[in-house]
Amino acid sequence: MRFTRRIILAALTLLLPVPAALAQSPNPLPSWNEGAAKKSITDFVTKVTMQGGADFVPSAERIATFDNDGTLWCEQPAYFQLAFDRIKEMAPQHPEWKTTQPFKAILDRDMKALAASGEKGLMQIMAATHAGMTTDDFSKAVREWAGSARHPRFNRPYTELVYQPMLELLAYLRADGFKTFVVSDGGVEFMRPWMEKVYGIPPERVVGSSGVVKLQTGASGRPELMKIAKIEFVDDGPGKPVGINRFIGRRPIFAFGNSDGDLQMLQWTVAGEGARFAGIVHHTDAEREYAYDRQSKIGKLDKALDEAAAKGWSVVDMKRDWKKVFTVEP
Amino acid sequence: MRFTRRIILAALTLLLPVPAALAQSPNPLPSWNEGAAKKSITDFVTKVTMQGGADFVPSAERIATFDNDGTLWCEQPAYFQLAFDRIKEMAPQHPEWKTTQPFKAILDRDMKALAASGEKGLMQIMAATHAGMTTDDFSKAVREWAGSARHPRFNRPYTELVYQPMLELLAYLRADGFKTFVVSDGGVEFMRPWMEKVYGIPPERVVGSSGVVKLQTGASGRPELMKIAKIEFVDDGPGKPVGINRFIGRRPIFAFGNSDGDLQMLQWTVAGEGARFAGIVHHTDAEREYAYDRQSKIGKLDKALDEAAAKGWSVVDMKRDWKKVFTVEP
Repeated sequence: MRFTRRIILAALTLLLPVPAALAQSPNPLPSWNEGAAKKSITDFVTKVTMQGGADFVPSAERIATFDNDGTLWCEQPAYFQLAFDRIKEMAPQHPEWKTTQPFKAILDRDMKALAASGEKGLMQIMAATHAGMTTDDFSKAVREWAGSARHPRFNRPYTELVYQPMLELLAYLRADGFKTFVVSDGGVEFMRPWMEKVYGIPPERVVGSSGVVKLQTGASGRPELMKIAKIEFVDDGPGKPVGINRFIGRRPIFAFGNSDGDLQMLQWTVAGEGARFAGIVHHTDAEREYAYDRQSKIGKLDKALDEAAAKGWSVVDMKRDWKKVFTVEP
Repeated sequence: MRFTRRIILAALTLLLPVPAALAQSPNPLPSWNEGAAKKSITDFVTKVTMQGGADFVPSAERIATFDNDGTLWCEQPAYFQLAFDRIKEMAPQHPEWKTTQPFKAILDRDMKALAASGEKGLMQIMAATHAGMTTDDFSKAVREWAGSARHPRFNRPYTELVYQPMLELLAYLRADGFKTFVVSDGGVEFMRPWMEKVYGIPPERVVGSSGVVKLQTGASGRPELMKIAKIEFVDDGPGKPVGINRFIGRRPIFAFGNSDGDLQMLQWTVAGEGARFAGIVHHTDAEREYAYDRQSKIGKLDKALDEAAAKGWSVVDMKRDWKKVFTVEP
């Protein structure tokens, strides 16, 4: 069932980011339990913002990057729902998909086969579902999806299944002069249409995977950008430092992820000079959200968990460290 | 002759952007003569910032994009001086360059042959001069160049040959809630190291051409990004709307260029809904700067000049409209 545009807008309005003023309150992170994780964050922010201190970093250089899937919002059971819906819609025009992976896996709802197709499979899906749409039409489709699609377990729009403690963290950092960016393997044009409303992060601060687009003259005689079925950039693993360099042009001093796909971003962040922060969201809460790490098909957290232990990175235990998980309790 | 780092920093400090407060003064554009060009700018800004007005645009959507070469700084006789210097340095290791274009043209100082090699030639130069350096080392080389290289005619660092009226315009727009971006065919990693100091535009708001970079483990065991001799993206002509879509993710409402390489950016800007501004710097001042347009090898302004006339875009006549050209008079 589709919501009307008015209802979508009303729903999005409820999801406005936590106001910056909150971050100046005595407790800027109210949904975080007291403990090592919270303390590591506030200690770091205090340190780099203390004018004249040994670890002071000027505001312009306070770059903070966040993975999205599993770090800012729920990524289980599968966050690429929009692509799924489009594949089903488009299937009648593509009879070959019935026998070709990764499309067959989607049509059969065969999650195991889909996971086996790996990143390449996901990129093929992205390219197929986006191709032949203008960037404007694609943004519209994403907004409709954000307003209508619902999570199978929590029965809420995906954009409501964002982590309240992380929204507070984003606002806290921004109030302290940080620039907050999303750096995700998700399609950049899938993320931009809703992230400003939901996270307070505008399109130009969203870095993601992308397909090729081409400038052409539309039916109206006006120029338009058409999406082509060709992958341009995969913002995952080693692609994350590359994406950060390309889009942000400055090394972060603070980065948060939740899976091995974030390992290189975290390594790249802490390899810079001066004070650095690397954080990991560890999904330990099967009751309020999900519990997964070393063996998970989606959001596998294995090498990065070992490196965090070895290097003393901050590991957030969702069950222990978060008072509240989602913005709106399901 | 090379300046020491201290002197470079001191020189850059002199070039701080015009403070935002200036824009709130009764005359926010003091280096602009009264006339149609100035009026078209202030009228537009007044219109889109008037809350409740028919043309009001929320601050988050006030995206302004500026070409760099010939729009914000002097592009004549050739702005790719850094590449020139590197080619000469590297030539002993590349005997084949003596007979291969575009390298031969540089070594022979044959500007005509260089221009004939076109954009492809420039891109080859960029790839050759950047390859095999880490992004950190390249930034350092650019900073050294910015402090030491001098313009052949004006005998000043290139970063002092920036247009005072355009700095005022950038500050004026920012004071009115605009986000200002550079969108240039110049190499993004060549521009970012100095633009924040000179234009007040931070690295993440600089869009440009780029080469491929690769994440690797450096000698110190730390991750580093190595530049590869392979072109990734050319941010010129039709590439400009593509680059804007990729990096900014939102269509500008205000754009400024000075050549046919900016035509598509200007067309893309004005093709959006609502109030839009397209501006062109016309180089008409051979005495204070240079005079060139339809026949120029560098910064050719021909089709875009016709389109500006046909569509009523704002054309800035440097000689007539600017009281002062450079920040520091040569």
